[in-house]
Amino acid sequence: MWIKFNKMHGLGNDFMVVDLVTQHAYLTPMQIRHLADRNFGVGFDQLLLVEVPTKHDVDFKYRIFNSDGSEVENCGNGARCFARFVYEQKLIGRRNIRVETASGNMTLELTPENDVIVNMGPPILAPADVPFIPEGNDPSQAVSYKIEVAGHGRIELGAVSMGNPHAVIVVDNIDTAPVETLGPIIEAHTSFPSKVNAGFMQVINRNHIKLRVFERGVGETKACGTGACGAVVSGILRGLLDHKVQVDLPGGSLTIEWDGKGDVIMTGPTSNVFEGRVNI
Amino acid sequence: MWIKFNKMHGLGNDFMVVDLVTQHAYLTPMQIRHLADRNFGVGFDQLLLVEVPTKHDVDFKYRIFNSDGSEVENCGNGARCFARFVYEQKLIGRRNIRVETASGNMTLELTPENDVIVNMGPPILAPADVPFIPEGNDPSQAVSYKIEVAGHGRIELGAVSMGNPHAVIVVDNIDTAPVETLGPIIEAHTSFPSKVNAGFMQVINRNHIKLRVFERGVGETKACGTGACGAVVSGILRGLLDHKVQVDLPGGSLTIEWDGKGDVIMTGPTSNVFEGRVNI
Repeated sequence: MWIKFNKMHGLGNDFMVVDLVTQHAYLTPMQIRHLADRNFGVGFDQLLLVEVPTKHDVDFKYRIFNSDGSEVENCGNGARCFARFVYEQKLIGRRNIRVETASGNMTLELTPENDVIVNMGPPILAPADVPFIPEGNDPSQAVSYKIEVAGHGRIELGAVSMGNPHAVIVVDNIDTAPVETLGPIIEAHTSFPSKVNAGFMQVINRNHIKLRVFERGVGETKACGTGACGAVVSGILRGLLDHKVQVDLPGGSLTIEWDGKGDVIMTGPTSNVFEGRVNI
Repeated sequence: MWIKFNKMHGLGNDFMVVDLVTQHAYLTPMQIRHLADRNFGVGFDQLLLVEVPTKHDVDFKYRIFNSDGSEVENCGNGARCFARFVYEQKLIGRRNIRVETASGNMTLELTPENDVIVNMGPPILAPADVPFIPEGNDPSQAVSYKIEVAGHGRIELGAVSMGNPHAVIVVDNIDTAPVETLGPIIEAHTSFPSKVNAGFMQVINRNHIKLRVFERGVGETKACGTGACGAVVSGILRGLLDHKVQVDLPGGSLTIEWDGKGDVIMTGPTSNVFEGRVNI
């Protein structure tokens, strides 16, 4: 059977987006892996599925699959593309969209410029909930922590979860930051029992940072939306940043807002690349 | 403006194929580079354009562009996809198709199984025409040559051009062949003034080889059609192979036929991946 899809990207993080509200299909993990292949298939970082919701207070169910066929909980770049897709495909007439994800409900707002404002929910800071095990197993929350890293000495980092855990390290120069060498060591450090995404942040000024993220299980990526949120939250807690910050990632820029206690708000761009149909 | 395209592959070598007979568009090198990007664009190894011929004895003009936007002369995997595309898009009613390329005319035949038989023309064996400079600048043609390679001693190889030059080296075991180490040294060796594609061939029997190719300017690829032709021609000349040989490449298999003097005939598969339209 043929299914229609759109190819989109958010800061270079690219998606095959499939409307399963008006189309009926079931994709097996093997089919997803095949579709994800960049030579033999459509090629994408993640597959986004638009489904009929299971709850009454949302407009759609938003499901995300990695290129290995596994379902994942959330993806900030994908959420932005999802919002633009459902609006442009006329699956909804409002620019304010409520979606159900595997990690809870989410509100998305499409601006007239096709940017999308995403309420990413509150950061999780209690070490046990990140999850993060501070030195001496001290359960108290701090604005930053120090951990011993073999070959690198004691490293200071923030520990923030945005649904997925982030370690945030301040560096002087983003271009020479040890993302490829220190990133995988932090990712697998025993202080992070579920592993961690390692973010390297250079503070340009109180409203502007540069960020590179070594993503858990993936490596360095063009743009990590939750990583941008985690970095700004950590920078605000450490007194380095104001409440609204431009985050320059290798794939482009996001704006992150946090009032110091409530939800984190992310605003960022979306891009349509092409429309297609594929026989599955 | 929107243009329609098909995404196809031949043994994993993947193509964006655009009909410029019924559509009118001009793609700049910058647009081609953008379209070739696998995150920000459609993503492909080569762009294939179907154009109205400039000669009276052919059906189409076949143009090929690399992902860097440069036009190249020929691509065997692409030619097979081209033939299936023009037939399935009903741009022609015959399964026997004559095309004009930057390196001369070419005849393609689509089988009922959607394999394509390609007349690749005769091999070029005169050293000066490959181009290849034998030791001592001896102009006489031989079935194989020896060249001195720093750190690897004297290497025996065949030198064959199929429109592009190929060095063919026989190895005992394809899995441990030094494709990544010796490949780039052969590619840039002073004996090949236009550089060279380096093929590593394991002879299974007189009708079956395994082949890995380090392509000039690219690196190791999944499948090199002209490389398969060059390897079989060299193997026949060296008395190792019969006239019809199955060539197993990392991306799949081709059948190559050569009678020892005339044209080389290549038969191989084609795959449709998806149909799309993109706003350029």
